[in-house]
Amino acid sequence: MRKLINNPENLAIELIDGFCLTNKNKVKRIAPHVCARKEAPIAGKVGIVIGGGAGHEPLFLEFIGKGMADASVHGQVFTAPTPDKVLDAIKAADSGNGVILLYNNYAGDVMNFDMGQDFARMEGIKVETVLINDEISAFPPEKAEERRGTTADHLVIHVAGAAAEAGLPFDELKALIEKTVFNCRSLGVSTSECTLPETGLATFELPEGRMEFGMGIHGEAGIEQVDLMTADATAERLCSDIIKDLPFKKGDEVVALINGYGATTRMEMFIVMRHMHKYLEQQGMAVYDTELGEFCTAQEMAGVSVTLMKLDSEIKKYWDMPADSPGFVKY
Amino acid sequence: MRKLINNPENLAIELIDGFCLTNKNKVKRIAPHVCARKEAPIAGKVGIVIGGGAGHEPLFLEFIGKGMADASVHGQVFTAPTPDKVLDAIKAADSGNGVILLYNNYAGDVMNFDMGQDFARMEGIKVETVLINDEISAFPPEKAEERRGTTADHLVIHVAGAAAEAGLPFDELKALIEKTVFNCRSLGVSTSECTLPETGLATFELPEGRMEFGMGIHGEAGIEQVDLMTADATAERLCSDIIKDLPFKKGDEVVALINGYGATTRMEMFIVMRHMHKYLEQQGMAVYDTELGEFCTAQEMAGVSVTLMKLDSEIKKYWDMPADSPGFVKY
Repeated sequence: MRKLINNPENLAIELIDGFCLTNKNKVKRIAPHVCARKEAPIAGKVGIVIGGGAGHEPLFLEFIGKGMADASVHGQVFTAPTPDKVLDAIKAADSGNGVILLYNNYAGDVMNFDMGQDFARMEGIKVETVLINDEISAFPPEKAEERRGTTADHLVIHVAGAAAEAGLPFDELKALIEKTVFNCRSLGVSTSECTLPETGLATFELPEGRMEFGMGIHGEAGIEQVDLMTADATAERLCSDIIKDLPFKKGDEVVALINGYGATTRMEMFIVMRHMHKYLEQQGMAVYDTELGEFCTAQEMAGVSVTLMKLDSEIKKYWDMPADSPGFVKY
Repeated sequence: MRKLINNPENLAIELIDGFCLTNKNKVKRIAPHVCARKEAPIAGKVGIVIGGGAGHEPLFLEFIGKGMADASVHGQVFTAPTPDKVLDAIKAADSGNGVILLYNNYAGDVMNFDMGQDFARMEGIKVETVLINDEISAFPPEKAEERRGTTADHLVIHVAGAAAEAGLPFDELKALIEKTVFNCRSLGVSTSECTLPETGLATFELPEGRMEFGMGIHGEAGIEQVDLMTADATAERLCSDIIKDLPFKKGDEVVALINGYGATTRMEMFIVMRHMHKYLEQQGMAVYDTELGEFCTAQEMAGVSVTLMKLDSEIKKYWDMPADSPGFVKY
């Protein structure tokens, strides 16, 4: 164990305490596990609720604010939030225009968010769900709805949040978010294990000098373990698998994202980004915008993921709008 | 070795390539190791040049932009930039109003920046230097000028950049920056080693379950190795040592910063932040603003540092101004 924590049982609550103190002018605490942007609920606007297990910060906790979500519900580490907490978040986000739940496709999350959604509907609140399932490795495209959500999250949340802010009505907003999820594809590679903060134990084993493609953000097994590749070869492999998947075509405009999983240096991310740009241009694709940073982490796991979001005029319009959240700022 | 790189000899150049591609609308490449904000040099404004060895990203490379520095010069990993590169950066920042060099106090940096400064003066450019030396552990307060610069960097750069942007004349600006450096104190703790990216070898040894106070950002020995403490005890120890140093007094307003060195999760940083807030308030200090993130890293070293910046009305005025740089945004 090398982590700076107190009682492991209080991890999620204490980190949310710290988050709220750090951002006291921007967010408010609705309940022990629920935070909302200061001005929520916002009159005339469809609410966006995000959430999931703790341990992936800034995801989802920190993606609330202007042009992002209205409320986030945070579970224990790598554990879905319970339905009562989901209900609290829905109420915090609802101004009478309904709420869209937007989170990653994991069985535990789906079960708990669905129950929270049911509770809210029983109270007369209009609620619908869009699942994020951008990670391409575990299932083929024809089973895309079974895929996990990973590092497309903040891209999708921003498009959704900006469109909600712009006043898009409920059904159109939901359709836009579904299209944006469909247009996002991700694949990652890990170069070291991560440990569970409660126990200090590694969630999987990865020998020095090896890397694994398709590793999940909770240590889920990947699809292939190989000897450590160069940054350029890694960028090419990640991008080429993603491009085949949608498929992306020549002339497509994309937002290209490099996400660090935790222990990855920005030095490495920039070096991977460098070749990714070159490779995407060689494939005839236009890199409209780039994102680089730690957005969806898996504790101190080393490695990177690539996400490509294919743009059309509608997605681009909302992507270009500002975002101001503790975890993601765009001006 | 677990890092995603290509030829280790090209690390710095390739990471700067990636940085410029990622931020192509905000920065420009002046020379292989020198970047400037797009609009530099800015007429009527004193230029600010920052820089140092690579491997600490986002420091210093990414702190150029509005309300930050005009140009940054990046050396090889953990190695000072050479004088010719410093000269390139000075020229990129100078609009005829002179340039202030602002960087961390390490012997190699001082030697190389001083030579670059001499070259620029020979070309008729007005150049002065302010060294950042916020790290309190290695020397007592009476030898403060021998101290290392660490995680106060982006706070100082922002105050300097905002004041320069506001049109403060050269001598007043230099005095303000010196005062701001004096008002910043930092102390950190490491919970794991970092490796040199060229070799994959650790720069020091830290057994599992131990932590070291005062460790430098290049693996310089610290002042005390102890068994891993809780987050709360760590926050208290870091803050109390810093408070004694200036000394900070009851009623002082501060900006309180938690910096992650690389592999530290935001979860841990928030938990440390939580208790830091409580402790500073107990000491009668007013936390005016907080910062949390990875600003000055030491590759994948785990651990955090605390920086406190004591505010007066002048520093506060410039701190409150906006910053827009790839590595630090403030609105």
